[in-house]
Amino acid sequence: TVSPNEDSDPTRMLLQLCVDGYYVAPGQVHIDLFERGMCCNYGPLGMELKKNLLEQWWCSVKRSRTQVFGISTLTTSDDKSGEGNAILDVERLNQLLDAEELNKTQLIQRIQMLLRPSTSLRTNLLQGALEQYSSWLELVNRRLPFGLAETGLSFQSLDGSGSRVEATYASLVWFCSPRSSSQWLDHWTRLRLQWWRKFALAPSEFSSRDVPEDELQEGASRGVKIVYSFPWGQETLENLWSRGDYELLQTHGGVRAKIQCRDGRKLVVPHVISVASNMDRSMMAYMHNSLQLLKKHDGKQKLYQRKVLKLHPVLAPVKVALDMGRGATLELRQVCEGLLQEFLDAGISAWPGSIDTTSSSVEKLNTKYDEMGVLFTMVIDENTLESGLLQVRSRDTTLREFKHISEVTGFLLQYIRAAHNM
Amino acid sequence: TVSPNEDSDPTRMLLQLCVDGYYVAPGQVHIDLFERGMCCNYGPLGMELKKNLLEQWWCSVKRSRTQVFGISTLTTSDDKSGEGNAILDVERLNQLLDAEELNKTQLIQRIQMLLRPSTSLRTNLLQGALEQYSSWLELVNRRLPFGLAETGLSFQSLDGSGSRVEATYASLVWFCSPRSSSQWLDHWTRLRLQWWRKFALAPSEFSSRDVPEDELQEGASRGVKIVYSFPWGQETLENLWSRGDYELLQTHGGVRAKIQCRDGRKLVVPHVISVASNMDRSMMAYMHNSLQLLKKHDGKQKLYQRKVLKLHPVLAPVKVALDMGRGATLELRQVCEGLLQEFLDAGISAWPGSIDTTSSSVEKLNTKYDEMGVLFTMVIDENTLESGLLQVRSRDTTLREFKHISEVTGFLLQYIRAAHNM
Repeated sequence: TVSPNEDSDPTRMLLQLCVDGYYVAPGQVHIDLFERGMCCNYGPLGMELKKNLLEQWWCSVKRSRTQVFGISTLTTSDDKSGEGNAILDVERLNQLLDAEELNKTQLIQRIQMLLRPSTSLRTNLLQGALEQYSSWLELVNRRLPFGLAETGLSFQSLDGSGSRVEATYASLVWFCSPRSSSQWLDHWTRLRLQWWRKFALAPSEFSSRDVPEDELQEGASRGVKIVYSFPWGQETLENLWSRGDYELLQTHGGVRAKIQCRDGRKLVVPHVISVASNMDRSMMAYMHNSLQLLKKHDGKQKLYQRKVLKLHPVLAPVKVALDMGRGATLELRQVCEGLLQEFLDAGISAWPGSIDTTSSSVEKLNTKYDEMGVLFTMVIDENTLESGLLQVRSRDTTLREFKHISEVTGFLLQYIRAAHNM
Repeated sequence: TVSPNEDSDPTRMLLQLCVDGYYVAPGQVHIDLFERGMCCNYGPLGMELKKNLLEQWWCSVKRSRTQVFGISTLTTSDDKSGEGNAILDVERLNQLLDAEELNKTQLIQRIQMLLRPSTSLRTNLLQGALEQYSSWLELVNRRLPFGLAETGLSFQSLDGSGSRVEATYASLVWFCSPRSSSQWLDHWTRLRLQWWRKFALAPSEFSSRDVPEDELQEGASRGVKIVYSFPWGQETLENLWSRGDYELLQTHGGVRAKIQCRDGRKLVVPHVISVASNMDRSMMAYMHNSLQLLKKHDGKQKLYQRKVLKLHPVLAPVKVALDMGRGATLELRQVCEGLLQEFLDAGISAWPGSIDTTSSSVEKLNTKYDEMGVLFTMVIDENTLESGLLQVRSRDTTLREFKHISEVTGFLLQYIRAAHNM
């Protein structure tokens, strides 16, 4: 269901494309969440795109420094650190509300008892890293700098209502000497902005800007945002903060001896640099960034718009779609299945277009796959059985060429490997 | 802090090893959670092990069938499908409890209003897939069978208390013709048990058993558990259920037309096979399964126990540890850093042993790395600078050999690749 004013509203068009291309699950609630940079139900392509993004983030952060360690902390915690939410057993609460024998004071007491051992959901990934900090000091022999990296869900209150929404974050918490914290903030800003732009079609839409002094978080001496320019304005993809040592000290009860590290010959309480990226909004940014609209004439000289989702080859959720030409026979189907299996065994994300036997024209198929951002489309037909050749079409060049069936897996692997080094 | 009776209690010893080897965060609460097959705070090695396990699960499930699609659904939901829990704004609730002007009836009304739009946490991954089912029917052109796969957190009530705990699940929901549902259950059981055993040192500790008829879940016609034999008894790693069509119909309001698929020439409501693996408990199982205790005499003929965590090469979180020999100079350190970077760039998970400059004996280092399950240990020393040779020790053979520094990355890559095809 494409909205009538789709052409005039680029945002609506992009969101519709996300649904039509199996990125986001149908339903207004999911489209709304996605538009706001929150986690929603993702379809097969959305799920792969997020996986690819998270993998690239890990590669970049872990490979950039040997002193970055991955951790995984709980999304729920039992302490009352004041996340502002509590997970309650509804049945028990309702039992209390229904208990006629309780007077108001007793009811309040019982509800407070119910609240006491309650679990709350985290609202950021920073706190977990600060808590874990002292556990992994031994790892680095108390030498600075080092970092703790984590990806996972964080939960926010929506518009101050009782409702909670979730978002996927990638977080690096970097512990460094107080002397060099400002340089480290610059270092990570540079590295991170490079990362964002590496996968962009229009890199200049990704930019960084300093947080003005009056907007700084408590305790932070400097802040940088990496933002993306959406049609409706700039949105923050990533926050980098130079946070000082206040929160680290707080988390460890102010016991300096427990958290001190060696800085040359001195012992210091490290300063904390936090880097937190919203990976759901980053999906939205890359999809917007990679969407190309091309005006095109069809055979009857009618003007129409070709939409191509030119996601970076490393991010593209589907590297190759495999379809059958007309007159699909059992033999043809078996060849298709075999080649699909070959792709999957080689770790190439492949789309089983051949599952769908409704006869679409090749032109329609290409339009569909371009909108999904599929890198290559291959069509197996009767000629393939004779000559071993199949048609390979590239999303980016729209050129078609014939390749031998025995060569296509190698061709794709090489193409993907080259894209990694771009 | 090793407990005095560690030798006599294999469970305690294993758990202590998990902490000492940077798998599980220190602290009794995390050890307890881990022991019970729940998610806890994981250290760098635990986090990598879980990542490796999830990746292998995806590879196996996606590659086994071209009709398996990955999805990602929300962990929170706004509908009141009766998960039994609600996430509440604590501040608002406390405001109500403190409001002296409210009488009991008013208080109850206000609390009920607070509950109305509330969010709840999922208790399984099945429901999300059942809800998403109709959205992705078009994908497969309503042809059976197909599957929806997802990994993520699910939240359980702990011992009926208000506390919630989380566990990481890998879930496959398979939609198939009612005629063949029993064969599909057998198919997936076979495939899954193969998968569990593939990475095991003692495969027979992983086994499957049919769920007795009187223990079947409502609506299920058959059930199979894949269990692991821990020292304290068998624990379930994975549940496979043949669930019929009851829940699918329920989820879609009983509207058969919306959910029917083609089965040959007929239209049918598919039967559902669910496969759900607890990936936290699977970590515990593999760690237990791969721990080898070897009696050994030291130079003074004192008997001691060597502990080796022989995790499958594909699962082992650290493939290589790199250390410096005595008399570490700046030059040696630079060579180390360079080689570490080479490993990371090649995607080899490497342990920067060289960060720690406290002079440990080689024997102590080997003991440590064996307990961490590190596949290879390499030591760079002054001789390396002259001859280019470094010592490579294998965890599994305990043999040491010299290799040229220019060859070690290729050697590791080849070893890991071979392990993938074992």
